[in-house]
Amino acid sequence: MKLSGQEELEASHACDDVPVGQPDGDPGSNPSPSDPLNTGSRDLEVPKDPLLFIQLNELLGWPQTLEWRETGRWVLFEEKLEGGASRWSAPHVPTLALPSLWKLRSLLTEGLVLLDCPAQNLLELVEQVTRVESLSPELRGQLQALLLQKPQHHVQTPGSGPCWGSSWPSKAPPDKEATLKEQNPLRWKLPPGTEAAAVLAGELGSLAQPLGAFVRLRDPVLLGSLTEVSLPSRFFCLLLGPPTLGKVYREMGRAAAVLLSNQQFQWSVRRASNLHDLLAALDAFLEEVTVLPPGRWDPTARILPPKCLPPQHKRPSSHLRKGKGCSVRRGTGAKDRHQHVPLAPSPELQRTGSASRPYSTFIWPLSLMPSPSEVSWEMPLKVLRDYGLDYLPFRLWVGIWVATFCLVLVATEASVLVRYFTRFTEEGFCALISLIFIYDAVGKMLNLAQTYPIQRPGSAAYGCLCQYPGLGPRGNESQWTKSKPEDRDDILSLDLGMVNVSLLPPHKCVQQGGHPRGPGCHTVPDITFFSLLLFLTSFLCATALKHVKSSRFFPSVVRKVLSDFSSILAILLGCGLDAFLGLATPKLTVPEEFKPTLPGRDWLVSPFGANPWWLSVAAALPALLLSILIFMDQQITAVILNRGEYRLQKGAGFHLDLFCVAVLVLLTSVLGLPWYVSATVISLAHMDSLRRESRACAPGEPPSFLGIREQRLTGLVVFILTGVSIFLAPVLKFIPMPVLYGIFLYMGVAALSSIQFMKRVQLMLMPAKHQPDLLLLRHVPLNRVHLFTAIQLSCLGLLWIIKFTPAAIIFPLMLLGLVGVRRALEWIFSPQELLWLDELMPEEEGNIPEKGLEPGPSFSGSDSEDSELMYQPKVPEINISVN
Amino acid sequence: MKLSGQEELEASHACDDVPVGQPDGDPGSNPSPSDPLNTGSRDLEVPKDPLLFIQLNELLGWPQTLEWRETGRWVLFEEKLEGGASRWSAPHVPTLALPSLWKLRSLLTEGLVLLDCPAQNLLELVEQVTRVESLSPELRGQLQALLLQKPQHHVQTPGSGPCWGSSWPSKAPPDKEATLKEQNPLRWKLPPGTEAAAVLAGELGSLAQPLGAFVRLRDPVLLGSLTEVSLPSRFFCLLLGPPTLGKVYREMGRAAAVLLSNQQFQWSVRRASNLHDLLAALDAFLEEVTVLPPGRWDPTARILPPKCLPPQHKRPSSHLRKGKGCSVRRGTGAKDRHQHVPLAPSPELQRTGSASRPYSTFIWPLSLMPSPSEVSWEMPLKVLRDYGLDYLPFRLWVGIWVATFCLVLVATEASVLVRYFTRFTEEGFCALISLIFIYDAVGKMLNLAQTYPIQRPGSAAYGCLCQYPGLGPRGNESQWTKSKPEDRDDILSLDLGMVNVSLLPPHKCVQQGGHPRGPGCHTVPDITFFSLLLFLTSFLCATALKHVKSSRFFPSVVRKVLSDFSSILAILLGCGLDAFLGLATPKLTVPEEFKPTLPGRDWLVSPFGANPWWLSVAAALPALLLSILIFMDQQITAVILNRGEYRLQKGAGFHLDLFCVAVLVLLTSVLGLPWYVSATVISLAHMDSLRRESRACAPGEPPSFLGIREQRLTGLVVFILTGVSIFLAPVLKFIPMPVLYGIFLYMGVAALSSIQFMKRVQLMLMPAKHQPDLLLLRHVPLNRVHLFTAIQLSCLGLLWIIKFTPAAIIFPLMLLGLVGVRRALEWIFSPQELLWLDELMPEEEGNIPEKGLEPGPSFSGSDSEDSELMYQPKVPEINISVN
Repeated sequence: MKLSGQEELEASHACDDVPVGQPDGDPGSNPSPSDPLNTGSRDLEVPKDPLLFIQLNELLGWPQTLEWRETGRWVLFEEKLEGGASRWSAPHVPTLALPSLWKLRSLLTEGLVLLDCPAQNLLELVEQVTRVESLSPELRGQLQALLLQKPQHHVQTPGSGPCWGSSWPSKAPPDKEATLKEQNPLRWKLPPGTEAAAVLAGELGSLAQPLGAFVRLRDPVLLGSLTEVSLPSRFFCLLLGPPTLGKVYREMGRAAAVLLSNQQFQWSVRRASNLHDLLAALDAFLEEVTVLPPGRWDPTARILPPKCLPPQHKRPSSHLRKGKGCSVRRGTGAKDRHQHVPLAPSPELQRTGSASRPYSTFIWPLSLMPSPSEVSWEMPLKVLRDYGLDYLPFRLWVGIWVATFCLVLVATEASVLVRYFTRFTEEGFCALISLIFIYDAVGKMLNLAQTYPIQRPGSAAYGCLCQYPGLGPRGNESQWTKSKPEDRDDILSLDLGMVNVSLLPPHKCVQQGGHPRGPGCHTVPDITFFSLLLFLTSFLCATALKHVKSSRFFPSVVRKVLSDFSSILAILLGCGLDAFLGLATPKLTVPEEFKPTLPGRDWLVSPFGANPWWLSVAAALPALLLSILIFMDQQITAVILNRGEYRLQKGAGFHLDLFCVAVLVLLTSVLGLPWYVSATVISLAHMDSLRRESRACAPGEPPSFLGIREQRLTGLVVFILTGVSIFLAPVLKFIPMPVLYGIFLYMGVAALSSIQFMKRVQLMLMPAKHQPDLLLLRHVPLNRVHLFTAIQLSCLGLLWIIKFTPAAIIFPLMLLGLVGVRRALEWIFSPQELLWLDELMPEEEGNIPEKGLEPGPSFSGSDSEDSELMYQPKVPEINISVN
Repeated sequence: MKLSGQEELEASHACDDVPVGQPDGDPGSNPSPSDPLNTGSRDLEVPKDPLLFIQLNELLGWPQTLEWRETGRWVLFEEKLEGGASRWSAPHVPTLALPSLWKLRSLLTEGLVLLDCPAQNLLELVEQVTRVESLSPELRGQLQALLLQKPQHHVQTPGSGPCWGSSWPSKAPPDKEATLKEQNPLRWKLPPGTEAAAVLAGELGSLAQPLGAFVRLRDPVLLGSLTEVSLPSRFFCLLLGPPTLGKVYREMGRAAAVLLSNQQFQWSVRRASNLHDLLAALDAFLEEVTVLPPGRWDPTARILPPKCLPPQHKRPSSHLRKGKGCSVRRGTGAKDRHQHVPLAPSPELQRTGSASRPYSTFIWPLSLMPSPSEVSWEMPLKVLRDYGLDYLPFRLWVGIWVATFCLVLVATEASVLVRYFTRFTEEGFCALISLIFIYDAVGKMLNLAQTYPIQRPGSAAYGCLCQYPGLGPRGNESQWTKSKPEDRDDILSLDLGMVNVSLLPPHKCVQQGGHPRGPGCHTVPDITFFSLLLFLTSFLCATALKHVKSSRFFPSVVRKVLSDFSSILAILLGCGLDAFLGLATPKLTVPEEFKPTLPGRDWLVSPFGANPWWLSVAAALPALLLSILIFMDQQITAVILNRGEYRLQKGAGFHLDLFCVAVLVLLTSVLGLPWYVSATVISLAHMDSLRRESRACAPGEPPSFLGIREQRLTGLVVFILTGVSIFLAPVLKFIPMPVLYGIFLYMGVAALSSIQFMKRVQLMLMPAKHQPDLLLLRHVPLNRVHLFTAIQLSCLGLLWIIKFTPAAIIFPLMLLGLVGVRRALEWIFSPQELLWLDELMPEEEGNIPEKGLEPGPSFSGSDSEDSELMYQPKVPEINISVN
């Protein structure tokens, strides 16, 4: 059966295109009712079929008290009423027994099928349905009364709390029920225009033979309280029969509901003109079902909704890319890094003001922290400084040269080279930065242990006493003890006739004019271990809070706040602990005055200073290396930020960015300010904090990534806050450094653990049997994967060694060398393998055999454990996210 | 279709009954080949059908180079060959497209079905199969040659490591291939007697019409290298046809394989006498399949094997309890606490010697730790001691009375009262013990902070110096500096003419005859924070190592060792850290001599001492309370240990145990030793360490709990080790106390988190939407669950308050009061609710309506998230496991 126009269907439920009303909060952002289903999908102007809400009302209580009770509902997935617990189950994939579908088919074949029924209310509908010849008049009367009977719905009242809100309003008064139906939270999850379908099924003792009816109403009609949400009904299905063993009719009802919830069946049955079309649609459904053999899985288990809905079967592949919530990996090469499909701006995209402010608060403290933790590309210059050269003037010339080279790179459009920065290079760079974060954090903690040495019991470097100058005759003693009478008990003053000695702490001793003497005067006890505790506390706390987002506890708002502000909260906790104990831990120091740090120097750097003139020419060599580094750093960051998965609307500005960097390097060199370039981690943290995700529109549908709240406000606020930090010095001085080191460690670990490279490193430690079902592993032999990882590890090790040896000056060249190594890998790995392990360079794209075993480039490199359909719907692959 | 004798089937794959060969290690415990399938299931003496290994060989390479390649295999679950990666997928539940089953059915209807084919080798078989009229002679010849062609198997060589072992031996020489087939690790997972089935499917251009053949061989025959494991083949299925769109024949081949892997189909087809029977079996299969609708789940996702296989459909329920690996909850009440179905001893059960020794090493240090952490039921007595009474004689009399009361309890068979100890009481008791563990661990750490105060910079309690007695004339100074020339540089000796003062550390000062003077002489810096670090380290390390067992990293042997010895390893790590830094942390002290601790007392306690005679009568009152406590403690421990889920073979000895306790209390009272009773946590840790689990027999089949290695060796070894601890004092004194406190904390937290009560407390913090799909929540309304939890929490709070106030003496009565509270709950909760939340008391069992909504008592109270079928196959429900 060929379905023409099938492609019209696919966007109707797509969360990312349809701005549906939010179930909670944000009432201001409700969409306008004027055909919202088309917003954002301009290439499909044909009107869509509305969404269908299906409800199963079961006839219970035979033979005593017959009553209809809602026991199941469907939009995309099934929700079952847990009878005993009187609550809705979590949405899950419906499973059916095959015979129930067969029985439904035969009942429909023999039963009543009304297509385009003109009934305008429930009464008319019931009359139409019961106009079956086989029914005796009294049975018809009984049936009509039964069908007009009000069903019991299980409506969760939104007013009551999330935990205690389960209530079963049995036979609520009509006005109250109307209110309940209006308040039904489900109503807010369904887009306007949604239609309802009611399936009524059950067993009736007075029936001698089964009674089946399927009605499609010509116009959707509000059928009173037949459905729990007051939606106009389009379909009505009645499945009654004499009592049987097992819940045969209930299962047939579920089968009918599942059929109606299927898009393809729904499409066909909306257009069916006779019974034959209906049965053909059912047969087409049967052709497509998946079968699970008996005895090999647990029929009481509920299959969770997949992270990504599969595309409909006969849909053209071009729509597969856009219609659904699953973001699809960019095509090979760098092509679509510059090509962004413009999406129509949806109302949510405009809401950048208040929503983004917290985020700036979040990023600001990070920018305050002293981070040599970035790839410290000033180091090679500092090495030169050791040769006795005047640093700032030399640096100025380097800056001038760097700016020149960068401008040349801009002029020659060198940014097209970014297409050679494949995942291999990006991950190598990211892993290096992350490792430097970790190394620095741990290193600084260990430095603290040297600054505040631990006093071991064996060591003789013990004790300190305060000696007052000159010989102290006995008469003097009374003088200074009188001056500090409140300290009298505490201070053991040894008046030894000639020398005045006390056991005052060193700083008090100095205050009082004495000299601290002894090996213990410069040791401060407890600081090292307490710092270590603060370090671990802030690291563990930030990590734990970050994971709160995916925990089951607390309402989602609380979890989101805790997770978004994990770093801030961890810092606050650390500060609180520190303030509570009041130990003299090293604190963050912020200058209190706005002036050059180097005393005596002017705002502008003198161009030569004491250096010979030729040094300004020689500066070109380090500048060349530095330019490579800046180019790599800035371009890789830009490449990552402009990935297709992020769905940025504003175009990428590779050349413009580099131009700005060049100008800024010049400016900061002249002023002697730090070069502010390497902002990969911060930029990604910023990006990550501006993610926009859909609220789930149907129960069980996962939120999908919609895009980034693109705006300039946060950047502005962050830099203004950085500027005014000088006024915050009295507050900032309470932040202990170990707390900040802990946050650094957290950032490094979080960034490192998010890249696919690390996942492959972990694979090396896992026995093949226990490895996760990564797509990568389905397509590339394990030893090839390990070989690739080992090569990457070696490169990283080499970079690391170079970074921390005198050879550091050639570090930028080596970084560029990664691209060369990647090229050389083509000799070892086949294009198909590189497609999965990395991505293809421009020249390689032609080399893939057309008939690969598997989907092809658009699915390459996914490391999802779940699905070949999905390419990481949430987290872009090179994600050095740190928040 | 009624299948008589269906019940014979179900035990054939049951891991727990069939001692199959271990895949790795333990070659000595291979079962004897004499009908091993019957071992352990004596109630089913009928011979079982053998297990079936099914292999799919696909015809690939048309039209160039035709070759057979193994692309799938089945025992219980499907393993797919990942073509690109040339490795086997993880075992998963097979999914089929419904049409492939229909097509298979029609092909079999038209094709050749040979039942009881007498072929004795592959050649004969091929001749039989190709004897189809429609085939032209040359096509027949081509087909015969093709079928005799050797297929390519993907055999994982066992010699190579787990990670690098994937190899594809294309066209190995015959002898090498035979070796490979012998070495195939799969061979060791299949029990002797396993038969093979080969499904050959593919597309052949020279065929004009489809060719289907299904052969059941009369005798299982080794068909050369047709299957990767050299097993005699019973079934052979050939599905060939002209090239089509999509892999139609491959899917039909998979369908045939899945059918054959189904026990019911297999049973029928082994007994089928004609095509009609075969088709009937297929139709019966179709009746039982579960259907997943298209578009609502991800067809590329692989469904993991369930933790527990569902029972076969028409199996009598009595076998459901024993045949499969899923342990089933005991019936309501205490009935089966005393009734143990005797299982035939299997060879594994005898292996108690070497295997259990590590476990004793594991338990022994726990018994060394000082644990007032148990419910410190000596406390009420110690209160009495405050009134100036002679403690030990009074304690002796209490012991005499306790022994008397306990003997009365034994004589009156009071243990039958344990049936009133429902989960409510048990969990209250367990939670209390766990909380006391945690409270004590944290409390002792905080005590340390008081013993070793932190030196704040503001405090003036600073400094210490060493003053030597008498006036020191200048001449004296040289004398003692000479005596310690090596310390010369470190010691700042202030020779002040009259007083000799130095800055020696206090202990050295005392050694040298000086007096430490100053407020700082008694403060030891760094100890508190370092202790806190040790505490946290051992806690986190033990917790993390315990979880290694379920991680993906490392081979299972390593994970098992790390997890089993998590406490020991955490202690060793702590000791190592402590030794490395060499700080004077408080250490574990073990007496070095074997004598009564109280100096001057005899080995035997004098019966009266200084107490008045009437005190020996008055001792009866505390003894009564104490007896209740001992009774509760011992009986609850016994109840938990004798749960049906543990499958203990040795009967429970409730009365005998209490008798022993009584005798021991008397003995220890006479000797003045601590009463050693409250061993709940230790006993459960012991039990848990002796779990016996099946090695998975078929790929994907989860290991099932087989029982406990019941023996007396570990107990003996533990107590011998405890006894010889006195000789280990030089070693034990290196264990820092904070490390032990960390382990206590870990034990408390682990025990607390394992009880269902805590899971329900956690539910209170979760929004209803995010709650796990617990069975409990499917059957009991949420607010009722919360009410029950709140009542339990209040009881716990009350017990806690009583425990830590002067009212502690009535604590045992209050503990008994839990049973009363539980009885009172019957007024609030319905029996159905109590069945799920708790369990039923004996009198309540009649009150459950026979037609409950759900399974019934045998599934009650499960808190599994997965399945209604399974009742916690691994962890018994009240599991205060601590290892």
